[in-house]
Amino acid sequence: MPRAERKIKAQLRAAKRKSPLLGRPGFLIRRLHQLHCALFLEETRDFAITPVQYSLMATLGERGEIDQNSLALEIGLERTSVAEVIPRLHERGLLDRRRGLDDGRLKLVKLTRKGMMLLRAMAPAVRRAHDRTVEHLEASERDVFLLQLIRLVESNNDIAVVPLRLR
Amino acid sequence: MPRAERKIKAQLRAAKRKSPLLGRPGFLIRRLHQLHCALFLEETRDFAITPVQYSLMATLGERGEIDQNSLALEIGLERTSVAEVIPRLHERGLLDRRRGLDDGRLKLVKLTRKGMMLLRAMAPAVRRAHDRTVEHLEASERDVFLLQLIRLVESNNDIAVVPLRLR
Repeated sequence: MPRAERKIKAQLRAAKRKSPLLGRPGFLIRRLHQLHCALFLEETRDFAITPVQYSLMATLGERGEIDQNSLALEIGLERTSVAEVIPRLHERGLLDRRRGLDDGRLKLVKLTRKGMMLLRAMAPAVRRAHDRTVEHLEASERDVFLLQLIRLVESNNDIAVVPLRLR
Repeated sequence: MPRAERKIKAQLRAAKRKSPLLGRPGFLIRRLHQLHCALFLEETRDFAITPVQYSLMATLGERGEIDQNSLALEIGLERTSVAEVIPRLHERGLLDRRRGLDDGRLKLVKLTRKGMMLLRAMAPAVRRAHDRTVEHLEASERDVFLLQLIRLVESNNDIAVVPLRLR
């Protein structure tokens, strides 16, 4: 085994001695997600918007008016979760809801002007939360790490309860 | 810029064209966590144990009898979440609870024999769920990817609501 590889294996063993949980990819990912949420909360506290609410608003910001089911697919959330988030944002005047004109079963949503302004005002804080989540990697490693995350997300997409719609 | 680096940047740009969400580390991590949960559910369906319940049982399996607050710190969960999970596992006869002898405020928990047997029976399925979460990386990349996850988890540990206790 080449020396670099031996060193990596030794580092992994050392980490597992600190806590066996560090040897489990799923635990590490859950934990990193918790930490990202804490960073997101810290950076965006003044706006009182959760990461999921933000994903939803950001998608509406890009797509304009779409129906709730499409919205759920865009962000890979279950329809029931989307149906829970929408009323909260609606109460705060951040989005508008209406029924489809041709198909009355369609529930269309779009950002209000207030929603769009909030999205824009939050953007720098959100960017900081995302950047801080991976800032402890060296710049040269970071892009490769993100590409690997993308590969894992895309290649496992079919196993999700709600597959992500990727154009 | 070296050619390899240019290629990586181009791949990242191509991913963002598919969905802007793929350019956000926090979204990718949330999504990968969702996918791991789906894989965990698929592999361990017969046992009806969630990833968090499993982390808790695995920690008890390694540490024997400990108090609920220490348990929360070991797995980086809020005490209230631990207090929600414990009764469910207790009802199923998977763990025992008692008050500390010296300090009656301590809530001690440990696995029952049934709990230990379930933990052992689940281990191969859990391992498969963890392995499948990262199987689409090449073997040579996987260890480095895990070390990077560990570095991010450790270096952000102090920002978490509940820091992880690392020995």
